[in-house]
Amino acid sequence: MKKIINQPKNVVEEMVAGLVSAYPDYVKQIPETLVIARTDDFDQVALVSGGGSGHEPSHAGFVGDGMLSAAVCGQVFTSPTPDQIFEAIKGTNKGKGTLLIVKNYSGDVMNFDMAKEMADMEEIEVASVLVDDDIAVENSTYTQGRRGVAGTVLVHKILGALARQGKELNDLAEYGKELVSDIKTIGIALSGATVPEVGKPGFVLADDEMEYGVGIHGEPGYRREKIKTSSKMAEEVVGKLKAEFNWQSGESYGLFVNGMGATPLMELFIYFNDVKALLAADGIKVDFSKVGNYMTSLDMSGASVTMIKLDDERLRLLNEPVHTISW
Amino acid sequence: MKKIINQPKNVVEEMVAGLVSAYPDYVKQIPETLVIARTDDFDQVALVSGGGSGHEPSHAGFVGDGMLSAAVCGQVFTSPTPDQIFEAIKGTNKGKGTLLIVKNYSGDVMNFDMAKEMADMEEIEVASVLVDDDIAVENSTYTQGRRGVAGTVLVHKILGALARQGKELNDLAEYGKELVSDIKTIGIALSGATVPEVGKPGFVLADDEMEYGVGIHGEPGYRREKIKTSSKMAEEVVGKLKAEFNWQSGESYGLFVNGMGATPLMELFIYFNDVKALLAADGIKVDFSKVGNYMTSLDMSGASVTMIKLDDERLRLLNEPVHTISW
Repeated sequence: MKKIINQPKNVVEEMVAGLVSAYPDYVKQIPETLVIARTDDFDQVALVSGGGSGHEPSHAGFVGDGMLSAAVCGQVFTSPTPDQIFEAIKGTNKGKGTLLIVKNYSGDVMNFDMAKEMADMEEIEVASVLVDDDIAVENSTYTQGRRGVAGTVLVHKILGALARQGKELNDLAEYGKELVSDIKTIGIALSGATVPEVGKPGFVLADDEMEYGVGIHGEPGYRREKIKTSSKMAEEVVGKLKAEFNWQSGESYGLFVNGMGATPLMELFIYFNDVKALLAADGIKVDFSKVGNYMTSLDMSGASVTMIKLDDERLRLLNEPVHTISW
Repeated sequence: MKKIINQPKNVVEEMVAGLVSAYPDYVKQIPETLVIARTDDFDQVALVSGGGSGHEPSHAGFVGDGMLSAAVCGQVFTSPTPDQIFEAIKGTNKGKGTLLIVKNYSGDVMNFDMAKEMADMEEIEVASVLVDDDIAVENSTYTQGRRGVAGTVLVHKILGALARQGKELNDLAEYGKELVSDIKTIGIALSGATVPEVGKPGFVLADDEMEYGVGIHGEPGYRREKIKTSSKMAEEVVGKLKAEFNWQSGESYGLFVNGMGATPLMELFIYFNDVKALLAADGIKVDFSKVGNYMTSLDMSGASVTMIKLDDERLRLLNEPVHTISW
């Protein structure tokens, strides 16, 4: 394993230290926690997300005006503990309630639920939105149901914009539930990620092999095969997305191609181009696009494609300016 | 070689197609060229940069209001041809002259010079700024003198802000020359980059080996050794930067930690943290920070550290908002 780190057990603490030191105008660390909160003051429902580290810039890069109020950083690929999540809830509570945005992994679901119970006892109102956008497989190594992956970033963006407008807690939760059902993602991997404390890749693909449907913690996908061209990969994933959305010609979608960490931006743009061409052939309008590394898996090589069904409001909310490090 | 591409010979064309298709509000392609220009209109000295592709988001990600007017995309790690550069000059000419921002590689210098001559013949006034911020080595595989690397992004930002304010061509060129002399960069590599048409890494490091001073096209650095901790790597590069700047306690600098492409953001923040701690120990104030993948080398693993000596004006110009895909 070659990484730019010191002690593997300290990577999250040191990352958080570096992040808040680099971007003090955006974020601050809640003292003695691994919680990263907005630097500026605000008066709205608080939005708290987080999860295991290793997915940077998720979620800390999306903390700020118009998106999250705080992000809780667990250890690498490990759910944050309930007390840390509770610190995030307390530290950003403005008396208007807190919405938790939780990726669907059993550990995250359990720990965010426990934090909610702790908040209940202090009479902080908490609701939550569960993101399960990964259509690759049902159930998985760490998950009942479908996994939460890159689509979570779009949920941060849209709910963040609504919370800033003053939408109330229960309305946000309800809006979020419907939103998540219209966001779907599917990934491909060319290589596995190496967790610093483990020291070797979580899975290994042969020199000419790829895998469809891999999760952001290296959870198994649904098929391995010889590596194909970008346009062939695009055919496979667009087929899966089409089967889920059952789209009709003329419909409007957002298209988000997300890198897993080690894949050059050049390849993401080529892949985006191929996916979009297939959508165009099906009469699908792409009215919002995003390409880059937003929900990574350490040094995994690969990419995911997320689509979101758009209406005028969602499109407007996606395009609103924010003040974050990474959107 | 595993990459998300189609034909290796078409990667740049397809990347450009994907980029302009994803971000039409920011950039457009000048028809029948590999030039990416601002979508919106403007009335100022035009700023044109570019170079070989493979360094994404440089330079196209920095095209837009407050930064570049156009970026010319050469083939991977290959200088753009004079006619392509000339198309960028013509396509963004507002009658106020054009400033070329050129990274110091022999091919780039020659081809941007030839494009300048072509512009002279059409009576478009052109000046240029040469960026040679890499302090690792004198002369290199493709370079007389020092190489131009990640510091170029800061040059785009500062000169872009000044051009937007209406600064005139010759004043910009003069300001740029002094600016470049106060920007210095040094890189480290943990692995080499694979050019699609070559199909194997440009250099190979052993499983426990790193190299100091590698260039963004895999040009040799100045020393290979066993991999160290992040804080030891930081000691080495801060020592080199200190020797160049000959800084005094109390001085103000900007600190920019740039990923080479395949290095997770987590590691960049850890490295930033270690570099900044050493600067603090020397009494150096860091008043501007940036951490991320901005001047990459395809799938190379590694990072560079850029420092810029700040005054109030430079700091203000760095912090001005821009409308680009990637700043």
